[in-house]
Amino acid sequence: MREFELLQHVFGRNADLPESVSIPPGDDMGAITLGGQTVLMTVDQVIDGIHVNTGSSPLDLIARKSIVRNLSDVAAMAALPVAAVVAACLPRDFGEDRTRQLFDALAETAERYRCPLVGGDISIADRPLALTVTVFADPAGVEPIRRGGAKPGDAVFVTGKLGGAWDESGGGAHLTAEPRLLLARQLAEALAADLHSMIDLSDGLARDLLHICEHSCVDAVIETASIPVRDQLPEPRWKRALGDGEDYELCFTVSDSAVARVPKRIGGVPITRIGRTEPLHDVRPCITLHHADGSVEPCPQVGWEHQS
Amino acid sequence: MREFELLQHVFGRNADLPESVSIPPGDDMGAITLGGQTVLMTVDQVIDGIHVNTGSSPLDLIARKSIVRNLSDVAAMAALPVAAVVAACLPRDFGEDRTRQLFDALAETAERYRCPLVGGDISIADRPLALTVTVFADPAGVEPIRRGGAKPGDAVFVTGKLGGAWDESGGGAHLTAEPRLLLARQLAEALAADLHSMIDLSDGLARDLLHICEHSCVDAVIETASIPVRDQLPEPRWKRALGDGEDYELCFTVSDSAVARVPKRIGGVPITRIGRTEPLHDVRPCITLHHADGSVEPCPQVGWEHQS
Repeated sequence: MREFELLQHVFGRNADLPESVSIPPGDDMGAITLGGQTVLMTVDQVIDGIHVNTGSSPLDLIARKSIVRNLSDVAAMAALPVAAVVAACLPRDFGEDRTRQLFDALAETAERYRCPLVGGDISIADRPLALTVTVFADPAGVEPIRRGGAKPGDAVFVTGKLGGAWDESGGGAHLTAEPRLLLARQLAEALAADLHSMIDLSDGLARDLLHICEHSCVDAVIETASIPVRDQLPEPRWKRALGDGEDYELCFTVSDSAVARVPKRIGGVPITRIGRTEPLHDVRPCITLHHADGSVEPCPQVGWEHQS
Repeated sequence: MREFELLQHVFGRNADLPESVSIPPGDDMGAITLGGQTVLMTVDQVIDGIHVNTGSSPLDLIARKSIVRNLSDVAAMAALPVAAVVAACLPRDFGEDRTRQLFDALAETAERYRCPLVGGDISIADRPLALTVTVFADPAGVEPIRRGGAKPGDAVFVTGKLGGAWDESGGGAHLTAEPRLLLARQLAEALAADLHSMIDLSDGLARDLLHICEHSCVDAVIETASIPVRDQLPEPRWKRALGDGEDYELCFTVSDSAVARVPKRIGGVPITRIGRTEPLHDVRPCITLHHADGSVEPCPQVGWEHQS
């Protein structure tokens, strides 16, 4: 059972959610609204041997990633981070020095992104390092951008360059990704109601854009030659961009009429149109690839699930 | 390094917390205040082999405990739960049936306590089960009861019966503890500003009352004969009550003048006076035990830290 299906099973039960739940499970963040104030929340794990490799990557980058993964979800909602809590499960032989180094890096990252740690839990066990971070965010005057808001005929964009964020040793760009917090706020401001849907790219463009399609009941077309890919990747580079994951960039859709208002670049980060959404052709949403030579094929079911 | 010291190190850095942080790290829950609304949050882990034993305990009780541990923190602040997010790390051979059973039990517990799951993350790894639950709560018209509000001369109370909540096989009362949510609300209502401080009993009465003392800069005296202990415990039963932990009852202090207003029992749960607080005698807060035979001794440094 894949994570997405499992989460659907789990959260499918929650048909009768109380009124306080303003964004139900299944989006980049859930939300509760209390006394007129909406608070967004998201949780992610970073586990040694799966999401990071303590044997080859510096501890401060591992700590950083555990927070940034969540901040990328905050960016996907165009919200602002407010606070975080961290649960750490430390290996028994981890030692005081590494523990302090780890928590100093957690606190530094949290401070840098104005997302202070307000609570935590520490366990020590006979197993590799695991960090679970929950981040809270404030819509701060911007209606959170959902996965389910895409309309047929939207233009599809991505930020940055994709693919190859994870190298063989567990290092790579996934450890130093910048959460697109300010970029997302500026996009939301520039596009207002024309910014229809957004998601962050953690499982790979193919899988994450499919989430937008599934939540929005649309199909999508990707022009593979348009996908912004990292230079050093082997050909066909678009394949890696579709499947690699861990980019922590944003994918979003906008009204076709608003395309001219999408900035080409924000804060040095390129913003690239890679395709469009279409009306649903069948029961299940699907993505079609249009290649530069005119050939067309269904997008393969690629993407990165963390248990694989 | 013990958990408490480590957390102090970690959170000691946060001297310049932003204004939005209305309760800083170190209490049962942290809090942020946004747009006049305070949201409380807490995180706890339940790890197979440390906090539970999947070999001998039913999966639904393990799921239940992972949420109730957090709800006990909510009770300690006299708040009401609002929502939860769950991060699960499942063993690779866990299988679909057990996964569904686990998540159904998580959702059922969350629903029963009106604390719906609004998000989650699932990883699969070569390691025993670990569940990390973050719970959000609403003060709902009651100023959260802090650890640091005790005053010298307060009366010290506990709810329920203590000790022996964890049996040798990993089973026991810790799996079925009732979070004292409604009891705490009724206490807060009955005592108003005379309810000075409160904590939930997870690490053992001695250690948890010491947290109140440390946060409040007071000493405490416990009349060991007054401690409500489980019947089946071997003598001296007060010793087990002081050190065992995992009771998920509440310990609180009230103005001496308000003692008569403390209910003897709420919803069938006994509420017992066990001692008093005193002005600090030395630099470090301490607890003194007064025994029935008139003898006096310093409280031993007992209590349950989860890494031990």
